[in-house]
Amino acid sequence: MKVRSYIKGQWINEGKETDLISAVTGDTVAQMVEGDLDYKGACEYARQQAGPKLRSMSIHERAFKIKFLAQYLLKRKEDYYELSTHTGATRQDSWIDIEGGIGSMFSLSSKSRINLSDLPYHVEGSHEQLSREGTFVGQHICVPRHGVGVHINAFNFPVWGMLEKLAPTIISGMPAIIKPSPVGSYLAYNVFKDMVESEILPEGSIQFIAADKPGDLLDHLNSQDSVAFTGSAETGRKLKAHPNIVANNVRFNLEADSLNCSILGSDVTPDMEEFDLFIDEVAEEMTVKTGQKCTAIRRTIVPENQVDNVIEALNENLDQTTIGNPAEKETQMGPLASKLQADRFDEQLTTLTNVTKSVYGNGEQKGAFTSPHVLLCHQPLDVDEVHKVEAFGPMTTVMPYDSNDEAIALANKADGSLVGSLFTADDDIAREITLGCAPYHGRFMVINRDSADESTGHGSPMPQLIHGGPGRAGGGEEQGGARAVIHNMQRVALQGSPTTLKNITNQYIKGAETNEADTHPFQQYFEELEVGDARTTEKRTVTKEDIEEFAELSGDEFYAHTDPDAAARSLFGEIVAHGYFVLSATAGLFVHPDEGPVLLNYGLENLRFVAPVSPGDTIQAKLIVKRKTVRQKKAKDKFPFGIVYWDVEVTNQDNEIVAEYTILTLIKRKHTLDMDIFEEEN
Amino acid sequence: MKVRSYIKGQWINEGKETDLISAVTGDTVAQMVEGDLDYKGACEYARQQAGPKLRSMSIHERAFKIKFLAQYLLKRKEDYYELSTHTGATRQDSWIDIEGGIGSMFSLSSKSRINLSDLPYHVEGSHEQLSREGTFVGQHICVPRHGVGVHINAFNFPVWGMLEKLAPTIISGMPAIIKPSPVGSYLAYNVFKDMVESEILPEGSIQFIAADKPGDLLDHLNSQDSVAFTGSAETGRKLKAHPNIVANNVRFNLEADSLNCSILGSDVTPDMEEFDLFIDEVAEEMTVKTGQKCTAIRRTIVPENQVDNVIEALNENLDQTTIGNPAEKETQMGPLASKLQADRFDEQLTTLTNVTKSVYGNGEQKGAFTSPHVLLCHQPLDVDEVHKVEAFGPMTTVMPYDSNDEAIALANKADGSLVGSLFTADDDIAREITLGCAPYHGRFMVINRDSADESTGHGSPMPQLIHGGPGRAGGGEEQGGARAVIHNMQRVALQGSPTTLKNITNQYIKGAETNEADTHPFQQYFEELEVGDARTTEKRTVTKEDIEEFAELSGDEFYAHTDPDAAARSLFGEIVAHGYFVLSATAGLFVHPDEGPVLLNYGLENLRFVAPVSPGDTIQAKLIVKRKTVRQKKAKDKFPFGIVYWDVEVTNQDNEIVAEYTILTLIKRKHTLDMDIFEEEN
Repeated sequence: MKVRSYIKGQWINEGKETDLISAVTGDTVAQMVEGDLDYKGACEYARQQAGPKLRSMSIHERAFKIKFLAQYLLKRKEDYYELSTHTGATRQDSWIDIEGGIGSMFSLSSKSRINLSDLPYHVEGSHEQLSREGTFVGQHICVPRHGVGVHINAFNFPVWGMLEKLAPTIISGMPAIIKPSPVGSYLAYNVFKDMVESEILPEGSIQFIAADKPGDLLDHLNSQDSVAFTGSAETGRKLKAHPNIVANNVRFNLEADSLNCSILGSDVTPDMEEFDLFIDEVAEEMTVKTGQKCTAIRRTIVPENQVDNVIEALNENLDQTTIGNPAEKETQMGPLASKLQADRFDEQLTTLTNVTKSVYGNGEQKGAFTSPHVLLCHQPLDVDEVHKVEAFGPMTTVMPYDSNDEAIALANKADGSLVGSLFTADDDIAREITLGCAPYHGRFMVINRDSADESTGHGSPMPQLIHGGPGRAGGGEEQGGARAVIHNMQRVALQGSPTTLKNITNQYIKGAETNEADTHPFQQYFEELEVGDARTTEKRTVTKEDIEEFAELSGDEFYAHTDPDAAARSLFGEIVAHGYFVLSATAGLFVHPDEGPVLLNYGLENLRFVAPVSPGDTIQAKLIVKRKTVRQKKAKDKFPFGIVYWDVEVTNQDNEIVAEYTILTLIKRKHTLDMDIFEEEN
Repeated sequence: MKVRSYIKGQWINEGKETDLISAVTGDTVAQMVEGDLDYKGACEYARQQAGPKLRSMSIHERAFKIKFLAQYLLKRKEDYYELSTHTGATRQDSWIDIEGGIGSMFSLSSKSRINLSDLPYHVEGSHEQLSREGTFVGQHICVPRHGVGVHINAFNFPVWGMLEKLAPTIISGMPAIIKPSPVGSYLAYNVFKDMVESEILPEGSIQFIAADKPGDLLDHLNSQDSVAFTGSAETGRKLKAHPNIVANNVRFNLEADSLNCSILGSDVTPDMEEFDLFIDEVAEEMTVKTGQKCTAIRRTIVPENQVDNVIEALNENLDQTTIGNPAEKETQMGPLASKLQADRFDEQLTTLTNVTKSVYGNGEQKGAFTSPHVLLCHQPLDVDEVHKVEAFGPMTTVMPYDSNDEAIALANKADGSLVGSLFTADDDIAREITLGCAPYHGRFMVINRDSADESTGHGSPMPQLIHGGPGRAGGGEEQGGARAVIHNMQRVALQGSPTTLKNITNQYIKGAETNEADTHPFQQYFEELEVGDARTTEKRTVTKEDIEEFAELSGDEFYAHTDPDAAARSLFGEIVAHGYFVLSATAGLFVHPDEGPVLLNYGLENLRFVAPVSPGDTIQAKLIVKRKTVRQKKAKDKFPFGIVYWDVEVTNQDNEIVAEYTILTLIKRKHTLDMDIFEEEN
């Protein structure tokens, strides 16, 4: 197998060939073909060929492409599992990488469709009132950047590392150039090749660099491009300070491995479930991926009086770990990713054993295979190495503490981590330690007997939550649901009249012109409705009897609606109508009773009762199409539909607003779309 | 007057003295005393003395401090106006700086209290479901960082530049070290001195550096600190790549001046209002602050066939500009900030006049005074200098374009700007040009006759909107309402059981334990209610008659509630209750009818009707205190109160959720607080 570059729509078949070696057998798995690559041309190709095509789609359309790509890859997963073995990964390790990566695509696609606009850009938050009369307002939007996203990935997760960066970049509307680590690149390459063959993304959206180093790629980036780097803190900082990156203010997201910790709460004793959960988690994090995770537990922080118990239990657990060929079912831990990695691990471990006591593990290495190692550091506040030197393999250093403050100080001494965790049954301890550690961590997990069963684990970044930490961990931020997409976009503050901003953003902004037609908008299909379409209702005068009847029917006998004396003493000074009556009567005014395209009103947002309605007041409402979102038709749905958000303003006889809110309706579509063809549920 | 440093709680009275010169008269206004400063000690003092005190307050308490500080400064504004004259600023120029700066504090304080948690940290967004049963969930929070914010400010806005950075830093919970530009530092110093004298902030929250350069300050920053720099792109890039900044991943926000543009739409002819508005804006941006604004219009992009008209009109307008001593009322434009600035301006202008044609202005300089200059560049796509060289004074270059695409290309050729603007009466042009320019701009303004009267202008960053642009403009982001505060915080993803996360965040998270007491929670005062306090209501069986009566009373005769045949054909398959009836009946179940601390239900959020309710179904609700926010008592209020957010879950007889939402209530407080003493409305 040849691992080739894919640049400017071409596979590069010529170049220097380097053998890629199986971590398990030492045999050659593939050759990497390192051609003489036109990096400048690759950047321009992405920007010119793919950028405009991606930007012409809506965020939702791009998110669907990622979903369909994930479905395409999922069908081919067994091919990837087979290759993954050569990287030293067990089935469980590969699951994190392969299905974890594909799962990230599904999750980010879904989150983007739920939380972001169904437009090429995202209309962020509500408008900002910048003037008294409201003729000049502001609105933030997030737009696709006119550049290319360069992804420099680490060796430890060839699939996940590629896909978790690719999904949000594409959804944001930007093409990507992917530079995997050569180690395990045959796995990334196969997944990449399938993505190209699927033809799901516009040509030029993804390019692939098979090379040891990314040549002069960074020299060709401009201020619309971005770099997302995952790897060692040292290399990351070097690239971040690259002269062209600095000169052009190229966005740079740095995701570096860090010395993450797990803390055993001082309340936990060996007879408690939390003790076993802690031991299992530490041992798991040491051995999964043979400890080659940026998020692994390098520092095990335990109460002074539990040190011996913890070491004993850890040793027992590790003794039961089967090390061997990851292709074999019983194997729980395979080799490191390469002989080179094994040598590096050995070197870093030596630095650490010089300042600690080894309490588990032996120094024998065989090829890329190594034993797990547990070190003990008696005075961890005084020994800097254990907080700074990362041995990237199956190891942890046990550190005693004697107070919550000391546990926090130790956790934070790594100067910024991707993740920390705490095992405790006491929520007071959980609160104190979590808030104490929070500024130094990107993610912090608390496990007890209630959450353990369903916990996704210390080491697993989740696509819904941000991944990245301050300081040593790089100061970057990836994932986090729709945030992952926003990170890749440019936020712009628009200013102008409400009508102009409505016309630019294609979302109704309070005060903008509206369009009232003869047809009731509830009698129109999704495609027929346009942003700004409106309906002003008839009027209704609210009577004392209305309020009394409503109190009786609803059972809401709150004194302000029922007791004239008490109401006189209230903020209102008199009997007022129930807010829920105003809502209900407004629905009565705007609903069209007949069957039609409106399927249902399924929600309501941002309701504010702005002024009271008293008996004798006359209310009237105006409904305006605020925004629209197409929904994918699922197999179980009778017909295709979309969501229409309506701005509702209820006024009184003095034209004062008494209530305002947004209602959410499902409205039938006339037509099916490409995306409706993919009917599988995920 | 001596401009002194304030470091570690001490005014530094000894050191090298440098004369600070009036831009108007050339006389000495003050001496800057440049002591031998302990920068390392200053950082530690901030982190150790002020950090813990600021972090012990809630975001709202910190926001109130900023409000009170703004009130304190506003009373002293005339002192600042007097000093400001020496910087060359007219009353109008000073208004932007002084009242603009103080106004930013009010706005950021208010936005923070509206949008952020009333806790030391902010609980961001809703929780994330990470497991099937919901025993393991995620929640993002944003916490104060354990560092110090270093603010390096530019000379052009001594007050605004200081306050717009200070407000969000303090509200985020972080102390600040302020390094103003020596030019005009006497003005910043006086405002700073008043802030110290007010004793409103905990000691150590603010320190002040009177120095030409910030010495070795950046060498002492760690990963919890941050730098916010405003100034030239060149200096900014140098500091951003400072070895210690890179090594420690110190957060660095860069805000650089850029070559902003304004575009005249191709629809606009001299007889249209938009033409005059455009000319006024360009002339105004040239002369306000004598053109010394990062946001000034350096590039005036006009349709080819309007070039002559624009130049003629601009010349006429500029001819009427009174240049002189800013202390005099009739003066519209004062001198540049210093003779040095005037020399620099002259030098940069020469570079530009070498490649353009001068169509307005003369080369005579007198002290720091200069004439406004208009240049014309015939082939602007081919002349790089006009998009790159910034002459920081009263000038603009007129550039012709012949299509919207060319206008966009020209606007974007500056490689990233803080702001762009467009004058057009045609919203199609507005949409095309705005979206074309958006990725290269931090802010984009469209002006027409509707928005002009209330427009705050091309050059004015608004505290509600983000300030900062990509590329040349630095790639940073400041302001933007509550975003300004979040920028200064650390976002952390928490994971654990809902109960543990509730106990850590002090905000109810779905699935967490609740506490039901005998007393109805609506009979409890604000202080008595705790997050997680709950009430499970009685049950109510919904009848066919209820639905009929509700249809009649509300007037909502939608077929799904009234027409059995049509309902049978609908998604529901049968008659169902109105969603608004479910809401109303639920209120009937949970409301306590008697007078008590609950003043009113003033809003409702995130309502979803999850499942239909049919005749015969029995509903029941559970109300849970989700979060609490203290409101400041205003003079007009009868009593102090707070807002309580209640999570409401309505279930049916099968314990399925039929509706969920959050209601917002005003609840009386028993006690007044310090903040209630400040009763003035702003």
